[in-house]
Amino acid sequence: MKYPNAIKKTTNKIIDYANRGMNLESDLNLTNTYYLENNIAVIYKKPTPIKIVKVSFDNKKNSTIKEAYFKRPSTTDYNGLYKGKYIDFEAKEVRGKSFPLSNINVHQIEHIKKVLAHGGICFLIVRFTLLNRTYLFKGEDLIEFINNGKRKSIPLTLFDEKGYLIKEAFMPRLNYIDIIDIVYLGGKV
Amino acid sequence: MKYPNAIKKTTNKIIDYANRGMNLESDLNLTNTYYLENNIAVIYKKPTPIKIVKVSFDNKKNSTIKEAYFKRPSTTDYNGLYKGKYIDFEAKEVRGKSFPLSNINVHQIEHIKKVLAHGGICFLIVRFTLLNRTYLFKGEDLIEFINNGKRKSIPLTLFDEKGYLIKEAFMPRLNYIDIIDIVYLGGKV
Repeated sequence: MKYPNAIKKTTNKIIDYANRGMNLESDLNLTNTYYLENNIAVIYKKPTPIKIVKVSFDNKKNSTIKEAYFKRPSTTDYNGLYKGKYIDFEAKEVRGKSFPLSNINVHQIEHIKKVLAHGGICFLIVRFTLLNRTYLFKGEDLIEFINNGKRKSIPLTLFDEKGYLIKEAFMPRLNYIDIIDIVYLGGKV
Repeated sequence: MKYPNAIKKTTNKIIDYANRGMNLESDLNLTNTYYLENNIAVIYKKPTPIKIVKVSFDNKKNSTIKEAYFKRPSTTDYNGLYKGKYIDFEAKEVRGKSFPLSNINVHQIEHIKKVLAHGGICFLIVRFTLLNRTYLFKGEDLIEFINNGKRKSIPLTLFDEKGYLIKEAFMPRLNYIDIIDIVYLGGKV
C-alpha cells in the first residue's frame, strides 16, 4: 500500500499532507460509518473526555460551554461490537520508524490488560504516516513487549513481524474487520 | 427496596433530594468502578459528546476550551465487557410513574436495534426517583413496545411485569451484573 511519494522526504509540509491523504481518525470514522451502514459492525469513536467548568444558558434551548479542559483518556478511543464480540482499540499516528510507548498512557495500558482478561478483542491501529502504512497490532503483543521492558519504542520491524498491514481502499477506507476475521475469528488469509 | 419516605410527596425539594440519595449516574459510576476494581466487568460511561469550536492555548502544556456545544448522543451512555460479552445500556431517571419514550432519541433507538442485531446485550436502566426503584428493562422489550406503537410512554406496570428490579446496597450500589447473569447468561434467580 505504499504510494509513490510516500517515503520521499520533503520540507514542504503542504505537499506531504496532500500526498498522504486524510488522517487516521477520519479514515477510521469513514470506515466505521461504512461498517454501520452496511450492517457489518457497530463500532464508534468515544467522544473526547473533557471537564466542563462553566456553561452559559443563552436561552431555553441552547447552552454554550464557556470553559472546559481536556482530560487524559482512561480507556481507548474506539469500542463496539462485531459478530457478537466486544471490540476495543486505540489508534495512533506516528511519523518515525518506531512507535514510542509514551503514546499510550498508564491507564490505557491497564484498560487494554483488563479487556484482554475479560475476553475482549483488543488491539492498536498504528499508522506510520511517512511510509503510509497502517498496522493492526494485537493487545497481547503490546503487553508482551511492555512486560519485556527492554525498549521504550516498538520498532517498525516488529510491526512487520507480528502486526497485520491493513489494506487501504476507497470503501471501506481501512478494512480492519477483515483482519479481525483472520486473526481472531479463524477466517482464511 | 422502597425507603420509608420515598413515596411521600414533599414541597421541600432539598429534603426530597436528601432522601433519595445520590443520582443514578453517580450510583452507576460507583458501581462500575467497583466492578472494575474487583475485576468483575469493564464498563464505562462514555464522555458527553460535545462540539468544540474555540480553544485557547495558555501555554505549552495547557489548553482551555473557550467555546463548545453539547451534541445529541447518537449511541447509549454506557458500554463495555462482561464475561466476554458486549454490554450496552442507557440510564435515565424519571419522576413520574411512566417512562416517556421521548427520553431516548431516534439515533439511540437505532443504535439499540443494531446492538441487538449483532448479538450484544443491550438494555435500559430506569430509575423512578419518587418511588426510589431502579429497573433493568431489556432492549428487546423496549423495541417491541415501540413497534407496537400504541403508547408514547412505558407504564410502571410494564416495568414490574417485564423489567427486573435492581438491588441497591452499599457496594456495589446498583448490582445490575447479577441481573445480567440471570436474564442473559442463564444464572439462577
